[in-house]
Amino acid sequence: MDQTTKPGTVNSDLTTKNPAVEPSPSIEGIVETAIYALDLDAMEEFYIRVLNLHRIAKEPGRHVFFEVGPSNVLLIFNPETTVHGHHLPAHGAIGPGHLAFGVAATSLPLWRERLTGLGIVIEKEITWPRGGHSIYFRDPGGHSVELITPGVWGTHAGW
Amino acid sequence: MDQTTKPGTVNSDLTTKNPAVEPSPSIEGIVETAIYALDLDAMEEFYIRVLNLHRIAKEPGRHVFFEVGPSNVLLIFNPETTVHGHHLPAHGAIGPGHLAFGVAATSLPLWRERLTGLGIVIEKEITWPRGGHSIYFRDPGGHSVELITPGVWGTHAGW
Repeated sequence: MDQTTKPGTVNSDLTTKNPAVEPSPSIEGIVETAIYALDLDAMEEFYIRVLNLHRIAKEPGRHVFFEVGPSNVLLIFNPETTVHGHHLPAHGAIGPGHLAFGVAATSLPLWRERLTGLGIVIEKEITWPRGGHSIYFRDPGGHSVELITPGVWGTHAGW
Repeated sequence: MDQTTKPGTVNSDLTTKNPAVEPSPSIEGIVETAIYALDLDAMEEFYIRVLNLHRIAKEPGRHVFFEVGPSNVLLIFNPETTVHGHHLPAHGAIGPGHLAFGVAATSLPLWRERLTGLGIVIEKEITWPRGGHSIYFRDPGGHSVELITPGVWGTHAGW
C-alpha cells in the first residue's frame, strides 16, 4: 500500500468534479466474510458439527473456509498468520466479532433443539419490531453468532 | 452467556449419540457481515462515495449499516461502544479485517477507473487459477477490501 496516502482517503475534488468517477459500477453482494481465531481446529469443528457448514478449503495454522448457501463464503483466519500478509494484503483482527446467518422461520424450533442438544448456550433471543427473530450464541473464538429469520432488515431478498 | 460453559464447546456425546441433533436445519447464507472502526464518519463516507452502498441505518458513535445487493447487510460498528453490549450480546474487534464484494467481470475496468479517480490506492490485483479476479484496497479503518469477479470460489451462484 502507498504509505504516502492515508488508507481509504477520498479525494473530494475528484469525487465532485471528475465525471470519470460517475456513475458507480454496481456491487452484487458480500461474497467473503472473515472472522479470526487462534484455535482453527475448534472453529472448524464448531462450524461443521453445529452449523453443518460445507468446508471448501483448509490450511492448518492459517485458515479454514466454508461455503454458506449459494452466494457466500465464510473465511476463518488465524490472525497471527495473516497479519504478516506474505503474498496477499495483510489483515488480522483480535477480539469478538459478529456475523449473522439467514435461516427459515420454520427452522427456529429445530435450531433451538440442535444448539441445546449440542451444549451450545443460547445467549439471547430477540423478536424485532419490523419482523423476524434472532438467536444469539458464541463460537469457540468468542464471536457473537446470530441466526436470523426473514424480515429483520427488509432486504430485497426478504432478510 | 453461561460463564460455566466454554463458549462454543461442543458436547461430543450428544453430537454422536443424540438423534435429536440430526439432521441439521439449513443455513441459507450469511446475511450480516460486521467490521469495526473508531471513525464511523470516515467509513460512512467511504462506503457511500467510493462503493456507492445504500445506507439503511445509522447511530452516531455506535454504528452505520448498509444494504449490499439483495441479500447482504454490512454492519460497521464502533467497537468501543459495542464491546459493552448493553441490550445486545457484546462484540467488538480491533485490527484490520477483510471482506470481499462481488462485482461483474465486465465492471473491473470501471472499478479501477473509479478507485484511481477517487484517490484510492489499489494495493494488489490477482487473477486466480480457477478463474475470477481480485482487486484489493483499504478502507479508512485499514480493512482489506476486495472486489471479486465470478469464478474465484466456484459457489453455486457463480462466485
